[in-house]
Amino acid sequence: MPDAEILAVGSELLGTQRLDTNSLYLTGKLNVLGVEVVQKCVVGDDRARLANEIAAALKRTEIVILSGGLGPTEDDVTRDAVAAALGRTQYQNADALAAIEERFKRLNRKMAEINKRQAMVIEGAEVLPNPRGTAPGQWIRTEDGRTVMLLPGPPTELKGMFEDQVQPRLEAMLPKQCIETVFYRIAGMGESDVDALIAPVYSKYMNPVTTILAGAGDIQLHFRARCSTVDEAKGLLAEVCPQIEKLLGDRIYSNDGASLEETVGKMLCAKNRTVAVAESATGGALGARMTAVPGSSACFKGGFITYTNEMKEKLLGVSSEVLAEYTEVSEKVALEMAKGVRERTGAYYGVAITGEAGPESGSGQPVGTFYVGVADETGFAEAKRYQFPGDRARLRQLGTQWALDLLRRRIVAG
Amino acid sequence: MPDAEILAVGSELLGTQRLDTNSLYLTGKLNVLGVEVVQKCVVGDDRARLANEIAAALKRTEIVILSGGLGPTEDDVTRDAVAAALGRTQYQNADALAAIEERFKRLNRKMAEINKRQAMVIEGAEVLPNPRGTAPGQWIRTEDGRTVMLLPGPPTELKGMFEDQVQPRLEAMLPKQCIETVFYRIAGMGESDVDALIAPVYSKYMNPVTTILAGAGDIQLHFRARCSTVDEAKGLLAEVCPQIEKLLGDRIYSNDGASLEETVGKMLCAKNRTVAVAESATGGALGARMTAVPGSSACFKGGFITYTNEMKEKLLGVSSEVLAEYTEVSEKVALEMAKGVRERTGAYYGVAITGEAGPESGSGQPVGTFYVGVADETGFAEAKRYQFPGDRARLRQLGTQWALDLLRRRIVAG
Repeated sequence: MPDAEILAVGSELLGTQRLDTNSLYLTGKLNVLGVEVVQKCVVGDDRARLANEIAAALKRTEIVILSGGLGPTEDDVTRDAVAAALGRTQYQNADALAAIEERFKRLNRKMAEINKRQAMVIEGAEVLPNPRGTAPGQWIRTEDGRTVMLLPGPPTELKGMFEDQVQPRLEAMLPKQCIETVFYRIAGMGESDVDALIAPVYSKYMNPVTTILAGAGDIQLHFRARCSTVDEAKGLLAEVCPQIEKLLGDRIYSNDGASLEETVGKMLCAKNRTVAVAESATGGALGARMTAVPGSSACFKGGFITYTNEMKEKLLGVSSEVLAEYTEVSEKVALEMAKGVRERTGAYYGVAITGEAGPESGSGQPVGTFYVGVADETGFAEAKRYQFPGDRARLRQLGTQWALDLLRRRIVAG
Repeated sequence: MPDAEILAVGSELLGTQRLDTNSLYLTGKLNVLGVEVVQKCVVGDDRARLANEIAAALKRTEIVILSGGLGPTEDDVTRDAVAAALGRTQYQNADALAAIEERFKRLNRKMAEINKRQAMVIEGAEVLPNPRGTAPGQWIRTEDGRTVMLLPGPPTELKGMFEDQVQPRLEAMLPKQCIETVFYRIAGMGESDVDALIAPVYSKYMNPVTTILAGAGDIQLHFRARCSTVDEAKGLLAEVCPQIEKLLGDRIYSNDGASLEETVGKMLCAKNRTVAVAESATGGALGARMTAVPGSSACFKGGFITYTNEMKEKLLGVSSEVLAEYTEVSEKVALEMAKGVRERTGAYYGVAITGEAGPESGSGQPVGTFYVGVADETGFAEAKRYQFPGDRARLRQLGTQWALDLLRRRIVAG
């Protein structure tokens, strides 16, 4: 099985602020195909240095993936560096140029002369169309059977191009190896708790390989069986996975890769029910998550961002007495917010979040204290308290995560 | 002035979760000394591959900094790899061993036999004591005047050792030099347009060096000057930067690294004014961005997520006639939303977003069509139409970006 190396191009990735995060995405995709990443490198906008590094990478590794440096400007050097490393010429590709011109026309923008540089293609390269941006990618097979690909730096462009163009080419190229994967997503548990619970089972098996990925309040469990036949691989998974499902029970919210917001959206549509949100500490992040899913308007009505207590009273009818007595970070306020948004929108479910995201506490409650509430048309209403760890961004993410999970459990229950 | 290269060692840094963050700290420290980091690499726990990479790095770069791989186990290969790359032997250093034994005694822990590996030192290396951990570092000058240093992976150990041991040695070794940076952020222009506008200026100068970074509707411009004195460096920037500022004018929204939401928040606080939002296509993402900034409750009241037309009428009072005649993705609706949220919240400014984020169009308008609106207490109200490129996530990001920029321009104007 060939190994891969990732070269991220851009002087901005050699500063004190930014890291190359595309490589995390690429590594995940490559691993699933059975390809290991054996080295990662960041090189600045320096033609000669990059050309040297590409040549060196091609000597030691079968697959070399470059990200970034495909822009129109003088310091976008990836095309030139690869051409130099391979000793190949470049030419202006008519189709690539047409696609760029077409894109500018569609956006009613005038194409700058320098954008033509983005249509320069290396002799023998396949052009990888980029519907999400200006710079096309390139896929090159060398005389000695190595593979080099040039991908754009912006994550949405890189991911789209990988899925549409690169993955099919890799699958066609790589030795057919039967990899069967079972994939669970889990809410409401920490990574170490999940591990402590299931380690006694998975540690007995070398195949399937178990991977635990931890996000903010969101654990992903991968079981990957590699065999010479599909049936063999499925057989191994059929032995391990039921034991895991038994241990985790309803904390597993999806086994098809669907995110928590996608899962909740599907459940709501299946029951033909709607939801509306009332957000304080998260400021709209819950609504943003739910509407990140295409077609969410079928079940998501909208809601209220009540960041100040004034807004909680004015927009949601939270009583000033309750705010005064219990503070805005309280079970009672979470309940009133959930009921309030449900009544004012006519949604079947109302979901509320209030909490202390820090860095300072406004309510006097400790930073990391969150209450999430859910109310529904039957008159049911509940709120739960959580004490989260982490910085402001993580606390807000955890708040939306637990709110979605509380809604999920209510949909199942009711 | 010598350049530096950073090699992070550890297979765990080649997975899907962890990134080498030590390099950000090291880069900051090196830049202050006038040293540029020209390449960064992550290599797994593989002796041969690491030895090759070290040898290659020493051919192209004067200073090579390794972090990690100094532990006691078989997978800790950094010492062996450096010795192999330099063709030098290792020996057990008595002082290093004594320090490790002393540390275990102090912690009342029994020292395992394998910990003796951590006392192995490369011929000719200076031992860098590590009061914060077990593994000592090493500082090596090669025959041809290159510098190699081995530093521990754990950030606290690495930082402590750099400040106590490495920095003084570098200062003694390096010609005195300084780096000064000016940093602009720009909204409302594409990367190639910015470049076309300012290239005639920056391309005349090798020093300062210019870097252009493109995000979704957000361009970052860096100008870095390297000189022997701070005043010289500032002088070079004082020559170039005013020309750039003249060309970009009010499209520059910050020169201190502040994000657009931070900048708008500061401007609102400075004028002691408040804002509320009305979001359709972005579903709360604008509110989430504004409240991601600590202390945003001083200027951000909240608002409405009106994802469906029913909610636009019910919560914001958008007229059903206007919705029927112009669709929800229209200038009129953006204006009514902005006015509606301002009136209902009592905020000084109301900002609205409505658009087609795709993948399908609900209103009949083309996917990527967005209208952003702003209204204020003076009765002023305007809405602008944009046609954005990209997928759903990017379109929503661009929607919040242009809404923030429209608000910023209104705060400046009014």
